[in-house]
Amino acid sequence: MKKNPLKVVIIGAGSSYTPELIEGMLARKNEMTISELWLVDIDDGWHKAMTIKSLTERMVKHAGVDMKIHLTKDRQQALKNADFICSQFRVGCLEGRIRDETISLKHGMIGQETNGLGGFANACRTIPVALEICREIEQLCPKAWLLNFTNPSGMVTEAILKQTNVNVVGLCNVPVTMQKGAAKIIGCNEDELVMQIAGLNHLVWATEIIHDGENKLPQVLDAVLAGDNSMVPQNIPAFGWPTKLVRDIGLIPCAYLRYYYQSQDMLDDEVIEMKEHKLGCRAEVVKDIERKLFEIYENPQLNVKPKELELRGGQYYSEAACELMSAIHNDKRTIMHVNTRNNGAIAGLPDDCAVEVSSIITSAGPKPLNVAPLPVDVLRLIQLMKEFETLTVKAAIDGDFSAALRALVLNPIVPTGKILEKALEETIMANSCYMPQFSSLIQELKKNN
Amino acid sequence: MKKNPLKVVIIGAGSSYTPELIEGMLARKNEMTISELWLVDIDDGWHKAMTIKSLTERMVKHAGVDMKIHLTKDRQQALKNADFICSQFRVGCLEGRIRDETISLKHGMIGQETNGLGGFANACRTIPVALEICREIEQLCPKAWLLNFTNPSGMVTEAILKQTNVNVVGLCNVPVTMQKGAAKIIGCNEDELVMQIAGLNHLVWATEIIHDGENKLPQVLDAVLAGDNSMVPQNIPAFGWPTKLVRDIGLIPCAYLRYYYQSQDMLDDEVIEMKEHKLGCRAEVVKDIERKLFEIYENPQLNVKPKELELRGGQYYSEAACELMSAIHNDKRTIMHVNTRNNGAIAGLPDDCAVEVSSIITSAGPKPLNVAPLPVDVLRLIQLMKEFETLTVKAAIDGDFSAALRALVLNPIVPTGKILEKALEETIMANSCYMPQFSSLIQELKKNN
Amino acid sequence: MKKNPLKVVIIGAGSSYTPELIEGMLARKNEMTISELWLVDIDDGWHKAMTIKSLTERMVKHAGVDMKIHLTKDRQQALKNADFICSQFRVGCLEGRIRDETISLKHGMIGQETNGLGGFANACRTIPVALEICREIEQLCPKAWLLNFTNPSGMVTEAILKQTNVNVVGLCNVPVTMQKGAAKIIGCNEDELVMQIAGLNHLVWATEIIHDGENKLPQVLDAVLAGDNSMVPQNIPAFGWPTKLVRDIGLIPCAYLRYYYQSQDMLDDEVIEMKEHKLGCRAEVVKDIERKLFEIYENPQLNVKPKELELRGGQYYSEAACELMSAIHNDKRTIMHVNTRNNGAIAGLPDDCAVEVSSIITSAGPKPLNVAPLPVDVLRLIQLMKEFETLTVKAAIDGDFSAALRALVLNPIVPTGKILEKALEETIMANSCYMPQFSSLIQELKKNN
Amino acid sequence: MKKNPLKVVIIGAGSSYTPELIEGMLARKNEMTISELWLVDIDDGWHKAMTIKSLTERMVKHAGVDMKIHLTKDRQQALKNADFICSQFRVGCLEGRIRDETISLKHGMIGQETNGLGGFANACRTIPVALEICREIEQLCPKAWLLNFTNPSGMVTEAILKQTNVNVVGLCNVPVTMQKGAAKIIGCNEDELVMQIAGLNHLVWATEIIHDGENKLPQVLDAVLAGDNSMVPQNIPAFGWPTKLVRDIGLIPCAYLRYYYQSQDMLDDEVIEMKEHKLGCRAEVVKDIERKLFEIYENPQLNVKPKELELRGGQYYSEAACELMSAIHNDKRTIMHVNTRNNGAIAGLPDDCAVEVSSIITSAGPKPLNVAPLPVDVLRLIQLMKEFETLTVKAAIDGDFSAALRALVLNPIVPTGKILEKALEETIMANSCYMPQFSSLIQELKKNN
Repeated sequence: MKKNPLKVVIIGAGSSYTPELIEGMLARKNEMTISELWLVDIDDGWHKAMTIKSLTERMVKHAGVDMKIHLTKDRQQALKNADFICSQFRVGCLEGRIRDETISLKHGMIGQETNGLGGFANACRTIPVALEICREIEQLCPKAWLLNFTNPSGMVTEAILKQTNVNVVGLCNVPVTMQKGAAKIIGCNEDELVMQIAGLNHLVWATEIIHDGENKLPQVLDAVLAGDNSMVPQNIPAFGWPTKLVRDIGLIPCAYLRYYYQSQDMLDDEVIEMKEHKLGCRAEVVKDIERKLFEIYENPQLNVKPKELELRGGQYYSEAACELMSAIHNDKRTIMHVNTRNNGAIAGLPDDCAVEVSSIITSAGPKPLNVAPLPVDVLRLIQLMKEFETLTVKAAIDGDFSAALRALVLNPIVPTGKILEKALEETIMANSCYMPQFSSLIQELKKNN
Repeated sequence: MKKNPLKVVIIGAGSSYTPELIEGMLARKNEMTISELWLVDIDDGWHKAMTIKSLTERMVKHAGVDMKIHLTKDRQQALKNADFICSQFRVGCLEGRIRDETISLKHGMIGQETNGLGGFANACRTIPVALEICREIEQLCPKAWLLNFTNPSGMVTEAILKQTNVNVVGLCNVPVTMQKGAAKIIGCNEDELVMQIAGLNHLVWATEIIHDGENKLPQVLDAVLAGDNSMVPQNIPAFGWPTKLVRDIGLIPCAYLRYYYQSQDMLDDEVIEMKEHKLGCRAEVVKDIERKLFEIYENPQLNVKPKELELRGGQYYSEAACELMSAIHNDKRTIMHVNTRNNGAIAGLPDDCAVEVSSIITSAGPKPLNVAPLPVDVLRLIQLMKEFETLTVKAAIDGDFSAALRALVLNPIVPTGKILEKALEETIMANSCYMPQFSSLIQELKKNN
Repeated sequence: MKKNPLKVVIIGAGSSYTPELIEGMLARKNEMTISELWLVDIDDGWHKAMTIKSLTERMVKHAGVDMKIHLTKDRQQALKNADFICSQFRVGCLEGRIRDETISLKHGMIGQETNGLGGFANACRTIPVALEICREIEQLCPKAWLLNFTNPSGMVTEAILKQTNVNVVGLCNVPVTMQKGAAKIIGCNEDELVMQIAGLNHLVWATEIIHDGENKLPQVLDAVLAGDNSMVPQNIPAFGWPTKLVRDIGLIPCAYLRYYYQSQDMLDDEVIEMKEHKLGCRAEVVKDIERKLFEIYENPQLNVKPKELELRGGQYYSEAACELMSAIHNDKRTIMHVNTRNNGAIAGLPDDCAVEVSSIITSAGPKPLNVAPLPVDVLRLIQLMKEFETLTVKAAIDGDFSAALRALVLNPIVPTGKILEKALEETIMANSCYMPQFSSLIQELKKNN
Repeated sequence: MKKNPLKVVIIGAGSSYTPELIEGMLARKNEMTISELWLVDIDDGWHKAMTIKSLTERMVKHAGVDMKIHLTKDRQQALKNADFICSQFRVGCLEGRIRDETISLKHGMIGQETNGLGGFANACRTIPVALEICREIEQLCPKAWLLNFTNPSGMVTEAILKQTNVNVVGLCNVPVTMQKGAAKIIGCNEDELVMQIAGLNHLVWATEIIHDGENKLPQVLDAVLAGDNSMVPQNIPAFGWPTKLVRDIGLIPCAYLRYYYQSQDMLDDEVIEMKEHKLGCRAEVVKDIERKLFEIYENPQLNVKPKELELRGGQYYSEAACELMSAIHNDKRTIMHVNTRNNGAIAGLPDDCAVEVSSIITSAGPKPLNVAPLPVDVLRLIQLMKEFETLTVKAAIDGDFSAALRALVLNPIVPTGKILEKALEETIMANSCYMPQFSSLIQELKKNN
């Protein structure tokens, strides 16, 4: 079947990750013809976005591809008749993340972008904007596919699935990294493996790694427990798992499972890191990396993705996103690991929630593989965290403080009681301009202070 | 990866279907190298098996393939280190099926090879033999794949899954035919479709037919309800569905759903057919076709599969079987429709039962796609019939008359009460030499008469 | 706690059963003070209702009770501030039932008042009227309890539960009879037993019969299978169960399970009965009994419930209804067998459906006992029939012919195919004045004929 | 029915709670005739047990009851033909509990007798002994009822349910206290309420409080959130709930839910308490109370239960235990709140696990009321903690260190990582003489140190 040339939109184009995406699109120039690429950003990100636009134009030219690059603040113009939309914006920029993590740590809680109090705050800033974009997609390009890698990716995807009719797929580089790492450990090409993963975004396990007719998961797990960090994203420092625990579970946990299996260690590390780094916590580190990256991007000689970007931690996002675009466009039926509607794939979770599961990608989007019954303790943790996500999404949409408390009380990395209410109020106040849904609470709190 | 040449075994090689299988293997000579093909049969089928052996040798020679053909009654010799085993034997031959259908019709019941009282009888004759073969496979070639198309394929597969460690996949030409028919209706190549099916063997619905980014099932359903019979196997005469019923359900039923949606019509047709045909019921017709086919096979000039075989009704079995062999051998990851362990693919059924579902075929066998929630009435029928199957398998293994009654009482095409007990006893007596598991009941019944 | 005197309403007061109800109320004069009893009926039943009113006044006077009796056609006046409403009306009178059963038998189907095509027709006549009454209850006496024994009691209760806010409990004399029979078999008082039943109305099994610290169900089952008919309502002729089947299931089926376990026998019996009786089928027999009962009721000397009423078949309805009234009024916490919202009592059925289960009766109505997991074949039959009921209720409310077909196709006592569509259309046409919800279909059918 | 006189056994008779039990039995002298009461204890508790025996004899005499009191170390003699066994032993005495809580607090974890690391240790000490007793019961009095209030009551009951055939019911004074408190808040007698509770031992919510035809739970919840502590056991100091959180959940949590809803506050309080009390943590306080109680018990004038016992914290245990005995003995069918086999009462938990639910008590033991669907976050917490319990029971029986880690990692009040493994090893070493199941681990750890 002959395919039409594509119109692709990147929302939050000023992100330092964008060159990854461009590289991925250019690498697939023979699989899909992108005639128009629209870069969208807002005033806050405009300077960065212009830098990205120039770099993109140089990269496109260098690749000898005929693709028109637009940069605009007019999102609706960009979305009109789009085929694919990549969403990678960050409401409140890195400052928001820094604030979240600082408040968490101040109250003795783990600070994290997609989990705990920080994940909650991020969801509350982000979900209303994501839904606003989706309302526009429903009007302007209802058949388009939205590839979301805006964090917290799982909860954003869930909100969109439940509240809109948009064709959305949530993406993450964590399972991609796991598959590449497993291939490295086995000593084969990545595409020789059928790796199945299951869980939620940042709460995912590899459940089977088929190679040459056999499930090689046990031997990969041996390597992982012996200290092989190949399956861990590069932005996470090397670490060791609690061997007896993980071996007994018998699945390979993604790196973020450390927040559940090694919660005290993670908290201790964060406290030390905050003290040692002048810059403060992880978010500060990221901000510093970002600044340096943009200095590199501004080099007018640069016409490919610079190597330094790989240190940023999000490598393989682009690969996942561009491969997904091509797989849908070309009905490739490759197996990818995505966030999509559960529909029974993981038994014990609601049909209408978002799960992160291995799926074949067809021209009509992802079709999840069935997930065989999980160990009960693994399932229980997934069920618990899914309810955290569901209540967080509710709080993020309705500005429901009680739902927020119910969410956070369930989350195992969040201490509960007076300190939680205090830290939650502080978080909402610190984000007052990004969380209009909580306006009546904010006014009440202002009055009381 | 370099692949070793394969040893393939066909059990029940004297079947008139065998030339289909041979054709399928020869058509895939570039995908898989079969160095040894072992044809196995018993005394009863020996004459036919010798005819098949000769024809096979002529076909192999004509195709210019280097494949050694063995014919033996020594099953264990054949199984030793086999890679793939095709199981297509029929215990009690066609005479068994004829007896089953005659007894059913005599008592006013639908006579059918895989359902109702006939299906029960067939299961009781077949499952003990299938399990005996599987015990040998566990010893002689534990890593081999058993491709079962011995009927009743769903129950045989379930028995093997529950009782043995054999790698088994159950096959049927019904979903293959549905996919080919849907492609014809849409006007595209079969492989441009992602059709998903779900249910049990001979109790299956197409739930989605993706083509070019859209679910074309509604338009295919329109064609089917307007009388297009493309999705119906050729051995089933053209027929029309109850339009309002099927449109409202919104899925495309396989042809065998007529036994549930048009039970009285099916019974009436069978009664008429029995009266009109001198030969009696469908099984008699099949026997006649068989006789003619073997006359053709014996022609020493014949060195390809004869066209007449297609009238026999099982076309596409070979395609399914050979494609499955190649898909496993080559880790093709194509989507096929197979009988395999449920494991949650269809919510509401036990994890350990056999279901017929669309699966991707890997080097480690089928991995089912998740089945999105089915309409409740469809699910209820599947659940009911799965319990019929489970109890039938129990009766077939243990010779449990009470389990047999419990099975048949659930089956909607079986009238219950005195007539059922009578017909069931008559069936067991008529099969006394093939159902040793019921020996104590048989002796008791003999004594009472 | 001091209790107010009660206002009780009987809808369909002209029923021959009413004297049972009156007797039950008078027998509980020390437990509950009924100051007003409102008898409601329509023109069609007016003559009978007047007979009932006179008899009631004589019975009340004879019992020395101070209860005011009103007879009215003004249902709203009667309902105003009522405490309890007994619903026992019959839309289309016995003629409707006779028509249903005649049409069914004519097409070779079992004719039955609460199941199959007859049950479907009954539901379609009755549910719209029941919902109309409930709308009035919501307005005029929202806290009242509606005790429904209008058939088909299970489906009427389900419709009310799903569509209204009325406090409804569905009643049936079948489980009451089973408990009395079990006590007789064991040789103890009825209230010494804790018998648990579970299922749907007319599709119910006793699952446990506790007496003196032990489950006596096995010995009761032995007696039942040996021919003891104590657990069978008197209007059902003595019969024997298929022993091996029922013993293996291990629960005690209610008499109506014969329609599933002995379907052909039931049909054969009905055909014979129809031929032998001049009066035709069961409904005709009932009509004859009714006529004779009213002759007795008209006797001005009669001031108690006449013995002849017990032959009518509904004995113990009154006991169930009056005991339920008293149990709610007095917060008795006795265990009764009622139709109420499932809410998980029977796992595998929707929370919001009606089930027939043993419940403790509190001042806030029935609280079901948990039902331990049922044998799978029993559960499958319940699930199937619940979906028949759900689709029937949908058809009855919306006049949805497709839902009707989907319902009936699931029902194991209904043959499917052309004959079903024909019989269904004939049934709707024969009931055209009672099924306004099907008016567009009726017009269409009239045009075509 | 005439009842035989009963033989009752108390295991761990030297407990300071025993006089409560005796009082309860004497108060029910007209409901059940106890002819023999056997007090069982071991050497460690012998002195206390003798004190209890004397006090019991004085109480029995004072009550004018003819009951023979035996004190023995020969458990088997005591169990022979017993009717009821009350189990209230404590392996390792209070010292064990003190050690548990000290180790927990040292590592920054909440110290608690039935939850977290302390609950785990308690389970590992207790379950093997409980199972040993049950093996004797199976032999010596297989029809007896074991009323277990040995902590951790839920896990001990679960172990017995899964591993033995003993008729066991687990008891706790928490729900009893809730019911009494609710009655006080409403201003009625306790038995005028039908309160339903659901969850696990020490993880239970009141879900409905019926009084006079209405669910009064909302008004009781208002009172609780306004600071009414009537529903909290007396040994727990008055406290306030996080109002917005609990009101939004809409159920009334038992006091132990503070460990989940106010985890940091509980930990902070414990740390402060440990510092302030010379005696250390809660267990030390209890030990002090115990000492004082026994001084009182030794007073030869004392012939009733002394008031001071009520401060001990377990009040109403005796009431629950004796009422349960009488309810079973007399087939009372009263509603009690007990730990028993789930069997589907709480959907989403395994059938074979122990749950704490409101049940009617028959002569054959408790029959749970169905639990209507719980709020999802409540269910998720129950499911999580049930899996903690299941894995803890596994570890306690098999001495499985990996299962222990998997259990504790799930528990929300336990921090994970290096500190957990360290604290767990320390706990096992400190209990080495009470945890023979971990002997190989203990030897390994000894070798490494």
